[in-house]
This record gives sequence, C-alpha cells and structure tokens, in this order.
Amino acid sequence: MNNEKLLKDWMKKNEEQLCDLVSQMVQEPSTQLNELGIQHFVSQYLKELNYTVDMWEPGGEELTSHSAFISARESFVGSPNVVGVKKGTGGGHSLVLNGHIDVVPEGDLSNWTDDPYSGRVEDGKIYGRGSTDMKGGNAAMLFALKGIYELGIPIKGDIIYHSVIEEESGGAGTLAAILRGYTGDAAIIPEPTQLKIFPKQQGSMWFRLHVRGASAHGGTRYNGVSAIEKAQLVLTYLKELEVLRNERIVDPLYSKIPIPIPINVGVIEGGDWPSSVPDLVKIEGRLGVAPDESFEDAKGEFEDWIRRIGERDDWFIEKPVTYEWFGARWYPGSIETDHPLMNMLTKNYKEVVGESPKIGASPWGTDGGLLTEIGNTPSVVFGPGVTNMAHFANEFVEIEKVLQCSQIIGHTILEWCNLEKRGSYGE
Amino acid sequence: MNNEKLLKDWMKKNEEQLCDLVSQMVQEPSTQLNELGIQHFVSQYLKELNYTVDMWEPGGEELTSHSAFISARESFVGSPNVVGVKKGTGGGHSLVLNGHIDVVPEGDLSNWTDDPYSGRVEDGKIYGRGSTDMKGGNAAMLFALKGIYELGIPIKGDIIYHSVIEEESGGAGTLAAILRGYTGDAAIIPEPTQLKIFPKQQGSMWFRLHVRGASAHGGTRYNGVSAIEKAQLVLTYLKELEVLRNERIVDPLYSKIPIPIPINVGVIEGGDWPSSVPDLVKIEGRLGVAPDESFEDAKGEFEDWIRRIGERDDWFIEKPVTYEWFGARWYPGSIETDHPLMNMLTKNYKEVVGESPKIGASPWGTDGGLLTEIGNTPSVVFGPGVTNMAHFANEFVEIEKVLQCSQIIGHTILEWCNLEKRGSYGE
Repeated sequence: MNNEKLLKDWMKKNEEQLCDLVSQMVQEPSTQLNELGIQHFVSQYLKELNYTVDMWEPGGEELTSHSAFISARESFVGSPNVVGVKKGTGGGHSLVLNGHIDVVPEGDLSNWTDDPYSGRVEDGKIYGRGSTDMKGGNAAMLFALKGIYELGIPIKGDIIYHSVIEEESGGAGTLAAILRGYTGDAAIIPEPTQLKIFPKQQGSMWFRLHVRGASAHGGTRYNGVSAIEKAQLVLTYLKELEVLRNERIVDPLYSKIPIPIPINVGVIEGGDWPSSVPDLVKIEGRLGVAPDESFEDAKGEFEDWIRRIGERDDWFIEKPVTYEWFGARWYPGSIETDHPLMNMLTKNYKEVVGESPKIGASPWGTDGGLLTEIGNTPSVVFGPGVTNMAHFANEFVEIEKVLQCSQIIGHTILEWCNLEKRGSYGE
Repeated sequence: MNNEKLLKDWMKKNEEQLCDLVSQMVQEPSTQLNELGIQHFVSQYLKELNYTVDMWEPGGEELTSHSAFISARESFVGSPNVVGVKKGTGGGHSLVLNGHIDVVPEGDLSNWTDDPYSGRVEDGKIYGRGSTDMKGGNAAMLFALKGIYELGIPIKGDIIYHSVIEEESGGAGTLAAILRGYTGDAAIIPEPTQLKIFPKQQGSMWFRLHVRGASAHGGTRYNGVSAIEKAQLVLTYLKELEVLRNERIVDPLYSKIPIPIPINVGVIEGGDWPSSVPDLVKIEGRLGVAPDESFEDAKGEFEDWIRRIGERDDWFIEKPVTYEWFGARWYPGSIETDHPLMNMLTKNYKEVVGESPKIGASPWGTDGGLLTEIGNTPSVVFGPGVTNMAHFANEFVEIEKVLQCSQIIGHTILEWCNLEKRGSYGE
C-alpha cells in the first residue's frame, strides 16, 4: 500500500478526531488580544508530533520598522506567534503551512442563534466564530501532520507550520514569522475558499474618512449642517468609485465574482448628542486592491477621488473630506497558474473529490501576499471554509470539506516535500 | 428718581461686572457630571445678595418615580441643584427665575478656533461653550438681582432663583426644584431667544433606532447586507416624516421658522471592523413635539411610521427597524399671549430697546414645559443668546444683548413682584 493510501485510510478511521479538533479550536475565543489559549493548544499539538516549537511575542526594531509592517497595536505581549518545524530527512522541498488563529469580533450577538464560541456539531457542520475563517483549515493541516507522524511516513523536505496572530488586522504575525526565518519553497494557506484553488489574491488597505458638518441645536437644525447627511453623500460617492475600479478588472479568474475588488464601509460613527446637529462623522472601510495593482496606485486613485468630491457639493470645498490610511493592509499577490504546487493540488483534488477543482482569484487578501512578496515563498490559498460565511453570524464549516482538504493537503505534502531539489546532492 | 431708572443707571455703570460674570461662568466647563464648580460659584453669588441658598443633590423616590422624570443617570451625586430664595416684604407676586447651568459637549474640537471654555471677550462678544446656552441669560438675571440688592429696592413678592442641572438631558434638575416646592406665580427662563419673547415652546423626546444588516467579509461584501446602507434608507424615511409633521403646523407664531418641529438625527454608530459588512447601526435623535401636541400622539405617529418602513424595502420586513425612547424628554408648553407677565416683558422691551419685541414660539423645548405643566408656574422664555449659536462650535453671546436682557428682566421683576395679589390682604 502506498503512503497516500495509508494516509487516506488513517484519516477516514480518525475522522472523529478531526471533528473534535475543529470544535476545540473554535471554543478558544481568539479575537485580537485573546490569542494565548489557542496558541498554547496548537503548540502542545505540534510538540506531540515531535515538532520543534518556537513560541514568541512578535516585536523588535526589525519587525516594527519594516515597510510591510502594519499594526494598530503598540505591543504583542500576551499574543504570541507559534511556529513548529519538522526537519526533513534531506533533499526535498520545504513547505510552509500557514494559518492565522485570530478571529474577527462576533458582531451583533442577537444575530447568533447560539454562543459564538460553542463549537457545536450538527448535521455535518461545526459552528462558531472562526470555524470557517480559518480554524477548519488549520485543523485540516494539523490533522494531516498527525497522520503523517503516526504512520511514520518519511519526508525529505522541511515542514514549517505557522500558527500566526494578526491576519485580520494587517499580517504582523506572518511578517514576524518571515523575518524570523520561517520561509520555504512554497506555502499553502487554507483560508476559506470552499476548496477552490486561488493562485491570485486581492489585496486591501484600510481607510478612514472624516466628514465635517456644522453643529447647531437640533430644534433649529436648519441653522447647522448635518455631518450625517453629508456622510450619506460620501457613501454614495464611494460606491461610484467602486463601480469604476471594478469595471477595469478583466482577469477571467474573477469572471464570476460580482464585485472583484470591493470597497467595504465597515464602520460609521458620528455625533455625540441626540439634540445636536452632528459636526463630525468618521467612516472606516477597506479598499480592495487588484492582484496586479500596487498599493500606491490604488491609494492614489482613492485619494484623488476623495479630493474631487467638492465637484459634487460645494460644502466639501469649504469643509473637505479628510482621509488617512490606518491599521491594516494586506498585500495582493499572484503566482503562476502552472506552478508545480498548483499542479499537485489540482491533481490531488481530482483524486480526492473526483472532479476538477475550480481555480479562482481570492476576493480578499490573506497573508499569502506577504509570504509571496516579502518571504519569497510562492503561496496558494486553498481551504475548506465557506467564503461567504467568513465574518458572518452563525459561521460554520462542513466536516466533510475539512476532511477532503486535509486529504488533499496531506497528499500534497507527501509529494511536494519529497520532490527532490535539483543539485541538492552535489552541493 | 424712580427705581427703574436707578436700576438702569446702576447697570450701565457696572456693565463691566456683567461682562466678567458671563466670562467667569463660561470658564466653568459644566458639562453633565461636571456641574459642581459652577454651582458653588452661583451659590456664593446668591449668598452675597443675602439669598437663602439651598444646594442639594437631587434624588429620592418622589423625584425618580415621577411620571415626568427622565434621566439616563442613576445618581446625581456630585451634580447639585442650587436654589436661592429672597422672601418679599409681602403681598406681591412671586417670580421664578430659572436657568440651567449644564452645557452640551464641545463636539469636534477642531471646529473651535479657541479653547471652548476660554470665556474670551472680543468685539463685544463673549465666547465659549454655554455662553449663549445659557450662561449669558443666567448672568443677566443674577446681575439684575445684584442691582436690586445693592440699590436696596424693596420687593413685595418672593424671588426664587433656580440654578438647575440636567436641562440638556431631560429636565430632572427643574423637576427636582419643583418637587422641593420652589414654584411661583410665574417664571422667566432666559434661554437663547435673541431677545424674542416665547410664550409657546416646542417639546421634544429622544428616540433610538436599531437598523440591522447581515454581516459578511468585506472582500465578498455582496454576500452580506450592509446595515449602514440600510440606515441611509432609514434616514431618508425619517426626513419624510419630518415634512409630514411640519406641514400640519399652522400657528402664526411659527410662520417664519423653516422647520417648526424638527426631527434631528444627532448620533449614528455602526459596525466594528473596517473589513466586515456591518450588521447593526444605531441612530439616535430628537423628535420635536408641537406646543399643543401630546407626547403620546407624537410617539404614536413616529412608531407607526417606523413600523411601516417595510413597505419601502422588503429587507425591513425580515429585519424590522426597532425603536425605543430613552434619556431625555422636554414638555411642550404654552401660556396665553396676553398673560400679564407677557405684557410687562413686552412693555419693558419697548422701553429698553426702543422698538416692539418679536413674539415667537420656541423651536426647542426648555424646562418651561415642566414649570408650566408640572409646577403650575406659567413660564415665558426670553433670553439674550443667539438661537443658532446654541450647541455650535465658537458659541458666543453679545454683551449688549445680555445687558438689555438684564435691564428688561430687572424692570419686570420690579413690576411683577410688586404687583399686589388680589385678596392677599384679607386672607
């Protein structure tokens, strides 16, 4: 029996373990600043598979002064990264398996039918914040590593497992892992792609706008200018820019995506007294950046658009909308669609699922941009989660998809890491 | 020389004192919870005029269980009311002089050209938060009382000076003063009317709406429903209700007011992550209530309107906009336009200013509603501030207007309080 077959059988036999693993990981409420529990869990898991585990709190000059470093945080104390390394027997290709363990906040609790961190299993689904984005994917990788370990399958190349913080707010965790030397010949990132394979990914950056009004007593509101009313104009104006930018996207990989590079307004906040005309509204959102577009070009177009809003309403000539870039930024990224890792994933997908995979372009940024661009580690995004469940209330992941992902990644590890590096013997 | 003339001359001679008084009062940053400094100041001022001063922290069952009690606060510890009483020599009419000392927050500091609490005097204006609403008015009353005291002018009726908290958030301060027995035969409230005389006043109440969406990752925002986009529809829909309600106002006193009873949206807040589609937006505002309208009628119409928003967009059938009434509520109020106090104020205005006063209807609620309705003390609103400066950045009050107001109120005190009460001798 070959190793692929052995691994497949082991996984089938231990499927329940995989389900428990996802559930346990979801039960760790690892929003920003609350990552310690899940990192101890992952660290322990890797140690049991004889990985050399490095757990550290990111920081230091090299990281914080790096041009790709983006974070709203002053310190990562209490929020460690974890990297586990299993040295190969030699001569093979190394592989980075990258998964972030931070999850976005729960949003309005009344939209959840259950505790957001229940990890409840029902009808083949595991529920909870982070199940789809991306603990299901992380569990799929860890489960594959466990199978390989338990079966004693020899691996030539190094396996480098990244369990990183901060993906949801700029990728400081993955950048820290890269700068600590944890790169490889390629990387897989099981973000929620619904088992589509994404060699390209949208980047994004966060903007903040301030819209000004003129305050007045609400009882004579006609003497003021409501910043909330002016913000409505700004929101409509941003929508027009989104249309303009998306009309230009002709990459066939995006052909079925309604809005390839969305401009999402995520936060609005204005006014401080019900009886006053508000004089300031803050708008925060994310600007999607095309895989082949630079941050600078995207920024330039956005800023220019905002500066021209006075052409629509004289008020903005008197009180310009101000803008800033803050917090997070995710590199766009793209690797060749015929990269050997792409070919292996495609082949293994066919074997496991029985049909050809969908190859697409990721509608959101991931840490793959950083790995590809800064870490020189070509990255493919491929995971079991449901794209449109990410950041939703009642988020879930399907157990069957997690298992399939685990099998496909497992087989790809066996192939990729055992693929001889040219010239590696002679050197 | 008659007493009116004596008082007028004293005021002219001491005009600088009045200017200092306004300035000093503005320099006390008496936003909610920060009222202690100004109340000590007023208390000291009244004591120096031989008033019996009562300073107390409102509270107790009678207040908090009263049907007109509205407050977001659990306790008024550290936020005392002050009432000063000067008993008359007997037989005259009593007069309540009511002024709130709380001021609304400063709003966006970048709109202020100066420290909001500078009390700066320039070109005949005194600047700072609260100058117009309503410390200029309070100073006008205190200055008149000082003049009467220093000149030793005899007064038959009682003078009851209210220096109250909480006008800007529901009138708990004035209600507490009423319940403690500090009522009178009539009241003057020098809120900023630009020396117009207001026998009628708009009431108002605060509403809070919750608009729901469905969250999603911002990169696939088309899979969610933005609560911010839905909130834009709600804002437009509220505007329609405002038009509907104002079309009905035919009182000639409101004929020159662009929007007699505005619906003001003062606060918006939604979303918690720039890269997520927001699933909840909170909107807070004030609903203007006509002088002759009941709270219940206004509430009923508003609630019914909100409930019917599903007729405009099916989304709201699935996720209704929810509403609540909170925080503050100001009684509407109205007294006869030929009330004796109205006639005195009108006559004294003519004497001081040299032309007829404008009689109007207040576009905002004041504590006059409570005094009239609950305290059985017919109230007139008349003050030196500039209506459209209230709650504005760079708020100011004109010294000349403060002085004129002080003269008119001073002369009215002499007349009203010395007007014999019918039957008062025989009883």
